[in-house]
Amino acid sequence: MGTACLQGLKTIFKTTSDVLIYPASGTGAWEAALVNTLSPGDRVVIFESGQFASLWSKMAKGLTLKVDAITGDWRRGADADKLRAKLEEDRQHEIKAVMVVHNETSTGVKSDIAAIRKAMDAAKHPALLLVDTISSLASMDYRHDGWGVDVTVCGSQKGLMLPPGLSFNAISGKAVAASKSSLLPKSYWRWEEMLEANRKGFFPYTPATNMLFGLREALKILIEEEGLDNVFRRHDRHAEATRRAVSAWGLEVFAQCPEQFSSSLTAVLLPGGFDEAELRAIILRHFNMSLGAGLGQLAGKVFRIGHLGHFNDLMLAGTLSGVEMGLELAGVPHRKGGVAAALDYLTERARD
Amino acid sequence: MGTACLQGLKTIFKTTSDVLIYPASGTGAWEAALVNTLSPGDRVVIFESGQFASLWSKMAKGLTLKVDAITGDWRRGADADKLRAKLEEDRQHEIKAVMVVHNETSTGVKSDIAAIRKAMDAAKHPALLLVDTISSLASMDYRHDGWGVDVTVCGSQKGLMLPPGLSFNAISGKAVAASKSSLLPKSYWRWEEMLEANRKGFFPYTPATNMLFGLREALKILIEEEGLDNVFRRHDRHAEATRRAVSAWGLEVFAQCPEQFSSSLTAVLLPGGFDEAELRAIILRHFNMSLGAGLGQLAGKVFRIGHLGHFNDLMLAGTLSGVEMGLELAGVPHRKGGVAAALDYLTERARD
Amino acid sequence: MGTACLQGLKTIFKTTSDVLIYPASGTGAWEAALVNTLSPGDRVVIFESGQFASLWSKMAKGLTLKVDAITGDWRRGADADKLRAKLEEDRQHEIKAVMVVHNETSTGVKSDIAAIRKAMDAAKHPALLLVDTISSLASMDYRHDGWGVDVTVCGSQKGLMLPPGLSFNAISGKAVAASKSSLLPKSYWRWEEMLEANRKGFFPYTPATNMLFGLREALKILIEEEGLDNVFRRHDRHAEATRRAVSAWGLEVFAQCPEQFSSSLTAVLLPGGFDEAELRAIILRHFNMSLGAGLGQLAGKVFRIGHLGHFNDLMLAGTLSGVEMGLELAGVPHRKGGVAAALDYLTERARD
Amino acid sequence: MGTACLQGLKTIFKTTSDVLIYPASGTGAWEAALVNTLSPGDRVVIFESGQFASLWSKMAKGLTLKVDAITGDWRRGADADKLRAKLEEDRQHEIKAVMVVHNETSTGVKSDIAAIRKAMDAAKHPALLLVDTISSLASMDYRHDGWGVDVTVCGSQKGLMLPPGLSFNAISGKAVAASKSSLLPKSYWRWEEMLEANRKGFFPYTPATNMLFGLREALKILIEEEGLDNVFRRHDRHAEATRRAVSAWGLEVFAQCPEQFSSSLTAVLLPGGFDEAELRAIILRHFNMSLGAGLGQLAGKVFRIGHLGHFNDLMLAGTLSGVEMGLELAGVPHRKGGVAAALDYLTERARD
Repeated sequence: MGTACLQGLKTIFKTTSDVLIYPASGTGAWEAALVNTLSPGDRVVIFESGQFASLWSKMAKGLTLKVDAITGDWRRGADADKLRAKLEEDRQHEIKAVMVVHNETSTGVKSDIAAIRKAMDAAKHPALLLVDTISSLASMDYRHDGWGVDVTVCGSQKGLMLPPGLSFNAISGKAVAASKSSLLPKSYWRWEEMLEANRKGFFPYTPATNMLFGLREALKILIEEEGLDNVFRRHDRHAEATRRAVSAWGLEVFAQCPEQFSSSLTAVLLPGGFDEAELRAIILRHFNMSLGAGLGQLAGKVFRIGHLGHFNDLMLAGTLSGVEMGLELAGVPHRKGGVAAALDYLTERARD
Repeated sequence: MGTACLQGLKTIFKTTSDVLIYPASGTGAWEAALVNTLSPGDRVVIFESGQFASLWSKMAKGLTLKVDAITGDWRRGADADKLRAKLEEDRQHEIKAVMVVHNETSTGVKSDIAAIRKAMDAAKHPALLLVDTISSLASMDYRHDGWGVDVTVCGSQKGLMLPPGLSFNAISGKAVAASKSSLLPKSYWRWEEMLEANRKGFFPYTPATNMLFGLREALKILIEEEGLDNVFRRHDRHAEATRRAVSAWGLEVFAQCPEQFSSSLTAVLLPGGFDEAELRAIILRHFNMSLGAGLGQLAGKVFRIGHLGHFNDLMLAGTLSGVEMGLELAGVPHRKGGVAAALDYLTERARD
Repeated sequence: MGTACLQGLKTIFKTTSDVLIYPASGTGAWEAALVNTLSPGDRVVIFESGQFASLWSKMAKGLTLKVDAITGDWRRGADADKLRAKLEEDRQHEIKAVMVVHNETSTGVKSDIAAIRKAMDAAKHPALLLVDTISSLASMDYRHDGWGVDVTVCGSQKGLMLPPGLSFNAISGKAVAASKSSLLPKSYWRWEEMLEANRKGFFPYTPATNMLFGLREALKILIEEEGLDNVFRRHDRHAEATRRAVSAWGLEVFAQCPEQFSSSLTAVLLPGGFDEAELRAIILRHFNMSLGAGLGQLAGKVFRIGHLGHFNDLMLAGTLSGVEMGLELAGVPHRKGGVAAALDYLTERARD
Repeated sequence: MGTACLQGLKTIFKTTSDVLIYPASGTGAWEAALVNTLSPGDRVVIFESGQFASLWSKMAKGLTLKVDAITGDWRRGADADKLRAKLEEDRQHEIKAVMVVHNETSTGVKSDIAAIRKAMDAAKHPALLLVDTISSLASMDYRHDGWGVDVTVCGSQKGLMLPPGLSFNAISGKAVAASKSSLLPKSYWRWEEMLEANRKGFFPYTPATNMLFGLREALKILIEEEGLDNVFRRHDRHAEATRRAVSAWGLEVFAQCPEQFSSSLTAVLLPGGFDEAELRAIILRHFNMSLGAGLGQLAGKVFRIGHLGHFNDLMLAGTLSGVEMGLELAGVPHRKGGVAAALDYLTERARD
């Protein structure tokens, strides 16, 4: 079963290299990406494009790395030009890794990983590219090999439709090579023994067996039953329908650039003076629906609508209905008709 | 556990008399009501108020009873005046039982059981009152004792939120007395041994054990966690929201009298020329939602929206969204805005 | 799914005729066999070979049939010679059906159905042959067609490894023909509409859907994964091991003829003065194992060890260990070594 | 729910200090114990009393600690006198921690943690005491506070009867104090944020939610339903019964000192020339039972019988029956009667 899971994951990550499975949540796979490839004091660049990127950045500092953060407006994704400039300045190649979150769960902003890779190549810089896909993998198109990523990090509880408790590293040959000289202390996360045991379909320590049974089923559903391209199209459709609802309400999608809109979740700005926590509490109390909170600097300002994983048109309609009624109950200034706009779009797409 | 289930069911049926549990679907409990109280050739009156009433009527005939059917428009419930007239004519008291379906699953029309009882009392007629509550019990107010019902029939798979496979008879003292002289052959359905075994918490033959575990949980949820009155209010709210959607679409609710509107399902008339089967097929294909078909004489004309059991506001919003989009895709003449009208109503009620 | 279940059941019953599925426990399928083929006052012969045969006999009387019981020692199965004599006497062919329990769950005695058929044929008697296989089907070889049975009755909760709640009739063409003129009132159990609906993969009333999912899995396990012949061999092995344990304990198997030993359960006689209820209570209290009680005239005298369904060698060893320790704790005179004798046999058979 | 789990775990660990829950397998909790309390290059003493102790030792080295291993016969537990001598020599208090496995899963040897604590106190040495209880907690008596342990490590999949995927650290105030100055890099395992979030019933990153639901049930079963003392007595009884079987077979329990016999598993030495892998393969093939392999230096020599967690007398009887039959089939020289000896003991104890 281990082997079936490991093979199926390669299809999901779009890689021919190895994928490793940890009995851990996604945060553990972040740590694995760092401790396997880097050494104490190594310099890394990270796009602090949202709350999760900031937490990953904080983790890197905690692990004694020198973190060079590219900050900016959380409403936009990673800026490939800024990265190129920074890398070109780094003549000594002190920067060992570039860390990007593909899809910021706190903001609903997607970064263009292919563009990041292109910038690194243009700068002829040998840093590793480490990418977090926790809220994008198996919901939105992602290409570990095609985009030249060195370590891709993911977890089980979003696109893979499982409970939390498994996380993953997809690793390039270059990442494996880097791991040979990496000096950060590691044991649980060490790729080497994991890869060795995996080769025989085993694990170096007790795996989360029951989760692997679930993973095998999830992979079958995604790859064989629905098909990855259909999965992506479904998420794109739901995201667009959500944005049409937001727009009809007269509210603002937090993400600013259309090409960076996330297909797995949408963060919505509340008009000044209205607290998202209050809105969410009202919706939870009346409709038993729990929306995503504003995180970090977005607390109080933004609420998030998730539309990923095991999800269909009518679940989305129910979700948006809960939001529309909640806005009314909370007295948030808005226009009605968000759900209607979403239904119009979904109907039109159903005709295709 | 048997005892806990039998006690809880009394609360649900609102009776202090006995309730019996059969390992069978609801149709079996129909049969039990007849074979325990009647003798070959007995005359019974039944309101053929819909497809299920007609099937029960057909069953009665198959069991050698003489069936006196009060037919009429399926769009209206049982007519107490007609019954009274019929009973008053029956000077010899040849009519042994009156059969009524409380809530016709094929039409969404509710009959007034208290009025039926009153008519029987006014006619001073000793016939038994047998009532089918398959799609109303535990969704809409029902009072076995309060309304003077002799045998109430129900099944597990609607208001009780279980899989199909259990069915019930709640029986009055008068029904038990009638069973002593009933001559219809019976064994599986025979109350006598069942009551005797139940007294010790046992069953005269193998019960559907796993279903009883489920029943115990369902009773706990209905009685202790949500509370029956809240359950009824929730169903009333969803039914009204559904009717507001239907009305906004410019379509017609099949039931004609407001006081007879069902709170557990709504049947909707399609404008002439449109086949409900086609509409339902489109909705199933595009939105993976299976609506109720037009049954019997309503085939092709009526589709049914269920809103009962484990169901909440956002599920209803999703359901109505599926219908609204389906109407559009099927080219059924209608106005948009049904979902919006339902949301307005639900929002208003959430304020209460 | 209905169709898959109905097809698989044919393989299990070894028939090319129809099999019907009732949402009911086995007792319901007994009733179905009678009410579909017989008319009020019809004469039937039944071998009252144990408690369940007696209950079936009682049911037949309750359904107004004239029951001609062949009684006898419960320690022996149906006597084909007695039947032949009785049928030959019945020159007018008043006897309409012969009822036999293939494997008496109360005694662990198996009857030879092929011999019964041969006796009926030798007597040139047209009575129908109705057989209960509740505790034998899918555990012991059974051949609806090969043995010329007209109605075979079974339930879900033994060899089919499901919860109770489904039961079955396998019916010959001759049984179907008889049903055309049968006059016993019936509706729930009526074959006609059931067969008609089944032909399209449907049911005339709500089936026990969740159980059908389970049935489909059980059929797959029995037919495809283990294979029926292996299933039978496994039960034969466990039964023989159990008898060796009983014999080593110095106790007596209740069944008297080796060719009539059941492979699905073994009833054991306790030496005079010892009450099986006490023994079973001790075993339940100390080892959380519930053995079968002595039923009817065997109450107090016999306990029963079930070894059927989802069961393997080590479960049997655990079961016999519980009995051996219980005999000791209850002070029942016995020799030790029953488990050891069973293990010797199982070891020997494992070498094959 | 988080709070309920954290409280219940304190009862299980017998501590009033904090317990932390990681979404990880037990190996992760080993790492957490080390990285939170120690700094690169710190000297630790570990009793390499079996395969798992050796793996923990290897992990410590991998994390840059200087490991001072007390080796010895794997057939005996940790030697408190040797530890005392070593600590008394360490005048500079360079040794920062003592690592002991309470119950070696590879050998079935239990170490006396109270004696270890006493030796440390006698030596007046300030090292921390770190204890692995992966295969003992909730099966055998263990006292985090009473025995003066600083960090206790455990996992979910043994005594706690859950799937693998959660692991634990119970931590003393002294351990928390040490964590303030610990310099090993850490993030996922860092106690500080975990303790802070736990205080409000939260977790600093996504917990393995579904496992927490299971944990809550397991704690209820252990603490409220069976009671910890009864749980321990049950394991003691099964372990003694197993050893009597081993002795009756003429085989040797691997553990050498009766006071060090594990109550959760028993390792058995095979006579020279017989390979445990072959024996286990035969038992798996014939009886579908998977025994524990010989690990590390015990490969080929020792097989292990687990008797922990959700386990009762008859499961044990089935287990020992599988071993006894396997020994015969594999041609391992032995005497019969092991199961019989175990049953004698269990019967005797049932009388108590």
